Amino acid sequence: MSRVFNFSAGPAALPDAVLERVRDDIPDWNGTGMSVMEISHRSKDFMAVAAKAEQDFRDLLAIPGDYSVLFAQGGATLQFAMVPLNLSAKGDTVDYILTGTWSKKAISEAETYCKVNVAADASDNNFTDIPPEDTWRRSDDAAYLHYTPNETIAGVEFQFVPDVGSTPLVADMSSTILSRPIDVSQFGVIYAGAQKNIGPAGLTLVIVRKDLLSRARASIPKLLNYSVYAESDSMSNTPPVFAWYVAGLVFEYLKEQGGLTAMAKINERKAAKLYAAIDGSGFYSNPVAKDCRSWMNVTFILKDASLDAKFLTESKAAGLTNLKGHRSVGGMRASIYNAVPEAAIDALVEFMHDFEQANG
Amino acid sequence: MSRVFNFSAGPAALPDAVLERVRDDIPDWNGTGMSVMEISHRSKDFMAVAAKAEQDFRDLLAIPGDYSVLFAQGGATLQFAMVPLNLSAKGDTVDYILTGTWSKKAISEAETYCKVNVAADASDNNFTDIPPEDTWRRSDDAAYLHYTPNETIAGVEFQFVPDVGSTPLVADMSSTILSRPIDVSQFGVIYAGAQKNIGPAGLTLVIVRKDLLSRARASIPKLLNYSVYAESDSMSNTPPVFAWYVAGLVFEYLKEQGGLTAMAKINERKAAKLYAAIDGSGFYSNPVAKDCRSWMNVTFILKDASLDAKFLTESKAAGLTNLKGHRSVGGMRASIYNAVPEAAIDALVEFMHDFEQANG
Repeated sequence: MSRVFNFSAGPAALPDAVLERVRDDIPDWNGTGMSVMEISHRSKDFMAVAAKAEQDFRDLLAIPGDYSVLFAQGGATLQFAMVPLNLSAKGDTVDYILTGTWSKKAISEAETYCKVNVAADASDNNFTDIPPEDTWRRSDDAAYLHYTPNETIAGVEFQFVPDVGSTPLVADMSSTILSRPIDVSQFGVIYAGAQKNIGPAGLTLVIVRKDLLSRARASIPKLLNYSVYAESDSMSNTPPVFAWYVAGLVFEYLKEQGGLTAMAKINERKAAKLYAAIDGSGFYSNPVAKDCRSWMNVTFILKDASLDAKFLTESKAAGLTNLKGHRSVGGMRASIYNAVPEAAIDALVEFMHDFEQANG
Repeated sequence: MSRVFNFSAGPAALPDAVLERVRDDIPDWNGTGMSVMEISHRSKDFMAVAAKAEQDFRDLLAIPGDYSVLFAQGGATLQFAMVPLNLSAKGDTVDYILTGTWSKKAISEAETYCKVNVAADASDNNFTDIPPEDTWRRSDDAAYLHYTPNETIAGVEFQFVPDVGSTPLVADMSSTILSRPIDVSQFGVIYAGAQKNIGPAGLTLVIVRKDLLSRARASIPKLLNYSVYAESDSMSNTPPVFAWYVAGLVFEYLKEQGGLTAMAKINERKAAKLYAAIDGSGFYSNPVAKDCRSWMNVTFILKDASLDAKFLTESKAAGLTNLKGHRSVGGMRASIYNAVPEAAIDALVEFMHDFEQANG
C-alpha cells in the first residue's frame, strides 16, 4: 500500500479504513460468496446494508423524523432540475443566491422551469465573498430559496444559515455535508452528490421535509419525483448498490471518529493551519474574505504564476496530488474533505514552506 | 476466496477475473497512490480509462461511426422517460411492443409524454411468447417503435430483430446486451442498465444514431438530453467513475474471451443444457414458447410448488444462490448472464437431477 495525500476536489479521497474494508469484501462479502456488487438490491442482505446506511446518516446529522432521506442518482446537476420540478409550479418565482460556478449552474437549470430571482450576486467580487444577508433582495412569494453553502472553485463557504422565515430553504451541500453539525430543521431540502464527503460518484443524497413531498409537478419523469423515492425507500428501481454500501462504510467510520462534532473540530483546525501558512507567507495568497473562507476547499495563488507548473510537479513528486486549481481561476486548490488526514495538511504546509524558501 | 454460483437476475454476477482486478486496484490503482474512486473524472488517468472502455464496447458490438455511445445514470427506468423526451414531440404517436413487466413499465412512462400505440401485446398468454411480427398493428406515423428484446421475469427473448423500415427502432437491451453479436445499424437507440451484463448498478449505456440527437424536446432537464452526453463525452457532470471503470474491465475480459461470437456460442450452449434438463425431467417445466426462450433468464417451475422452499434451501446450501423466481410469477429463475460460467449450469443441472430423484 503506497498511498499519497490526495487533495482532489471530487471524486475525492476516501478514508483508508473504508478502502481496506471495500477491498477485503471482494470477492466474498459477508460470507455470501458474492461481492456486494452482485446481489439484488431487494435481497435481505442488501436491504440491511441500505437501512443501516440511512440510519447512520440520520444519526450523524440528527435528521428529524419529519424528513425523508432519498438515495438517488445524477449528482447535484440532476438536482438542479429536480428542485424546481418538485417544489415549484409553472410560473412560480424562486429565489437563488449566486455565489459561484455551482449556484450559477443551478440558476441556469431553474430558469427552464421558473421565474428566477437572483436575490444576491457575488460575481462582482469574482465570487470571493458572500453578500451580507441584509442586502438580499428576496421575493415576497418565492416557492423556495436556493443557495450553495460551499462553492468548491473559489473556496468560499457560508458560515451562517440564511434566515428565510417560512420559505423553504434549499441547499446544495455537495462539498460541505458531513463536515460539521447542521440543524436540519432549518432546511426544506438538502442535497449532495456523494463524491466529496460521502462516497463514490454516482450516488446523490437528498434530505427533504415530508410536507414538501406533495408539490411535484404532474407529468415529470417518475425518477425525478422525490415522492417516488420516499415511498419506495429509494428502491423503485435498481439503486447504485455499491456506492450506497461504500457510503454506509463512510458513515460508520465517521461515527467511530466521534461524529460531526469531532469532525468539525478537526476540519476547522486543518483549514486554519493551511490559511495561516498562506497568510503568513508573503509568497502565497488567498483572495477570499476571511469570514467566508471554505473549510473544505482552500485556494491559493503563488506570487509568481510562472512557478505554478514547478509547484505542481514538485508537490506531486512529494506525494501531494491534485493541487491544481480549477481551470477557471488558476492557482492552487487543496480540497481537504473529511477523508484527508491532518497529516496531509502538515505535509502540505511543510512543502509550501520549503518551496517558498527555494523559490521565493 | 469462497465463491458461490450466483444466478441473480441483477445486480448480477461479475467475472471472477474482473473482481480480482478491482480488488488488486484498491487502494493503489495504476501506481497513482489512489483508488479509481478517488480521482477526478477529468484527470488524464481517468479519461484514458473512459476512452478505452468506450472503444472496447464499440469493438465488441462493432458499433458504426455514426452512432454515439453515452454513459449515463438512472438505469433503464430513466431511459423509459428519456426515449420519448428525446425522440418524440408532444402529441406524437409512438409504437410499443408489450412482452412483459419491463415493456409495460416503459409504456406506462411513455404515456406521460406521447400517444402510445401498443402494436402487439403478449399479456393474454401471460407473457410466454412473442407475438409474430406479421400480427403487429403498427402506426403509420410512429416517432419510433420500442421493444424489449429480453424480458427477465418470464424469461422470454426475441430471436429476431423487428423490421420496421425507416421508423427508428428502440431497444431496451438491459438483460441481453453483450450476450451475442447484434447488427447495431438496425437500431435507432439501444439502451441498457449495467447491472446484468456490463458492470455495477448505477451506470446506463446508450447507443444512439447521431441523426436522432437533434430531436430532444425543449425545456427538458439537461441530464435527460442525449445530445448533452454526446457533446461532452458523457462528462458534462461527474459520471459514475467506478462503475465506468468496472465496465471497462468487463469489456476487456469479454474481448479476451474471444468477443461476442465466442460468448454467443457459450451462452447458447449454457441455455440449451438447462432447457434440456427441464424439458427432459417431467418434474420441472418451463412455459415459454420454444422459439422465444431466453438465453439469459431461464425460468422453471416444480411439479409440486410446495417443494419450492426446499429446493431453494438445498440449492443455496449446495452453493447455487439466487434461484428464486420473481415474486410476480413464482417458481425458479436461473439468470445465466455472461459472467455465470458453464460450470455453474452443470452444477445446477446435477443438483436439479438429484433433487428430482430425492423428491420426484
